[in-house]
Amino acid sequence: MVKKIDGRAIAERVKDSIAQDISKLNGQRPNLAIILVGERADSKLYVSLKEREGKLVGIDTHLYQLEAEVSEAEILRVIQFLNEDESIDGIIVQLPLPEKFNTNKIIAAVDPNKDADGFHPDRHDYLLSPVLASILACLDEIGPGADLKTACILYNSEIFGLGIKEILTARGIKIVPKDRPEDADLLVTALGQPRYIKSKMVKDGAVIIDIGISQVGDKVWGDVDYEDVKEKAGYITPVPGGIGPMTIAFLFKNVWEIFRRRPK
Amino acid sequence: MVKKIDGRAIAERVKDSIAQDISKLNGQRPNLAIILVGERADSKLYVSLKEREGKLVGIDTHLYQLEAEVSEAEILRVIQFLNEDESIDGIIVQLPLPEKFNTNKIIAAVDPNKDADGFHPDRHDYLLSPVLASILACLDEIGPGADLKTACILYNSEIFGLGIKEILTARGIKIVPKDRPEDADLLVTALGQPRYIKSKMVKDGAVIIDIGISQVGDKVWGDVDYEDVKEKAGYITPVPGGIGPMTIAFLFKNVWEIFRRRPK
Repeated sequence: MVKKIDGRAIAERVKDSIAQDISKLNGQRPNLAIILVGERADSKLYVSLKEREGKLVGIDTHLYQLEAEVSEAEILRVIQFLNEDESIDGIIVQLPLPEKFNTNKIIAAVDPNKDADGFHPDRHDYLLSPVLASILACLDEIGPGADLKTACILYNSEIFGLGIKEILTARGIKIVPKDRPEDADLLVTALGQPRYIKSKMVKDGAVIIDIGISQVGDKVWGDVDYEDVKEKAGYITPVPGGIGPMTIAFLFKNVWEIFRRRPK
Repeated sequence: MVKKIDGRAIAERVKDSIAQDISKLNGQRPNLAIILVGERADSKLYVSLKEREGKLVGIDTHLYQLEAEVSEAEILRVIQFLNEDESIDGIIVQLPLPEKFNTNKIIAAVDPNKDADGFHPDRHDYLLSPVLASILACLDEIGPGADLKTACILYNSEIFGLGIKEILTARGIKIVPKDRPEDADLLVTALGQPRYIKSKMVKDGAVIIDIGISQVGDKVWGDVDYEDVKEKAGYITPVPGGIGPMTIAFLFKNVWEIFRRRPK
């Protein structure tokens, strides 16, 4: 019978630890700038959750809201201004940007020392993007008892897949081809195909990390058909309540890491 | 304090009643044809839920799966074939279709006597589209105690808004302008703007029907900020667990209504 990896509990622990560290600062607070371009309803809610949860852990957020009609040069000017602003520790650009913008170029304009989303090509090792940090936290949660020799990574976006591959091979895990998920001790899936992963695609006792989430009707579903795999898999991140809540906690972790490394 | 309208419970009641009626047929079962064009992951899961839940109430489903590359003429030929097939009671086309197709034209090709989604312009009164039937079921659930004189309907899609307006005015409810939700005894929202509706937009004791659902991270949210309105509104359909589960039950209700009216 599969064990669920409780992403909400992990997220709470990470946020509690940050909140405690910040509470020892005698009133100093890390500052996160959030750049939001356009009016996407989901992005606006995401930003408001980051603002609210940021307050709870003790991080001050500063929203820079730009209309979808601004020029790319204008976004780059805002980033430049924030790069130079001594009072700002971390900077994030809420994605996705409206399609006309060159996302890679805009992300690359963020000072790597302030890149709280860990997306910059020259990012620091201690600024891992929150999804990658969440995957590693899941492996730590399971502990060394699970001897993970092989992993299969299912993804649509090449950049995303490469990032996951990098952190897993750094841990000595061998990557198996995408068409052999049933051979892998660890299956990481980021397809956005609701309930696509069935038990026959899962090795006995495998660890499954489900990053692919989709809305269908009034529910969200992961890539994994939980009911189908629950007798076969060893561990699984549920959807909702798995990777999702962890990502926001690790964003704050990055802001804290930037803050505490800054020369005071 | 707001009362939640339990859409799951209403859906179970509707499905139980259909299942009981069908169980009295001595083995006859209503037949629903489902046309699915293309490979959208959410549509495929939706269809598989309809197939599975159909079986549970006693409705046989027949899936006609077409590739996204088919011609419109080919889809129309399948519909014509199903219109003429005596063994088929209800027909639905899983929406959305790939963009290149003329959805209105394809829907209009379904025999109005078999139109289980109630989308046909010449539809029968007893074949209400499942979302509209769900709204009326909510009003029936609240009962005549709530004296609803005025309603405000918030929507992006004109056709959708008009259907709701029609069923509410037929009940003697007066529609107030979209910019005056705080004047309405009944607020129906279908915007897809997560947590957009705040208490200041809600009349004291109002009934709120929330049809607008959005995925944000690993959660779905309605249009209504539940925490913000819960002390002010009288009744609300939660998300998830409100309108969503009811729509599939009312689809089956339509298939049953078609079946029982057919000359045998």
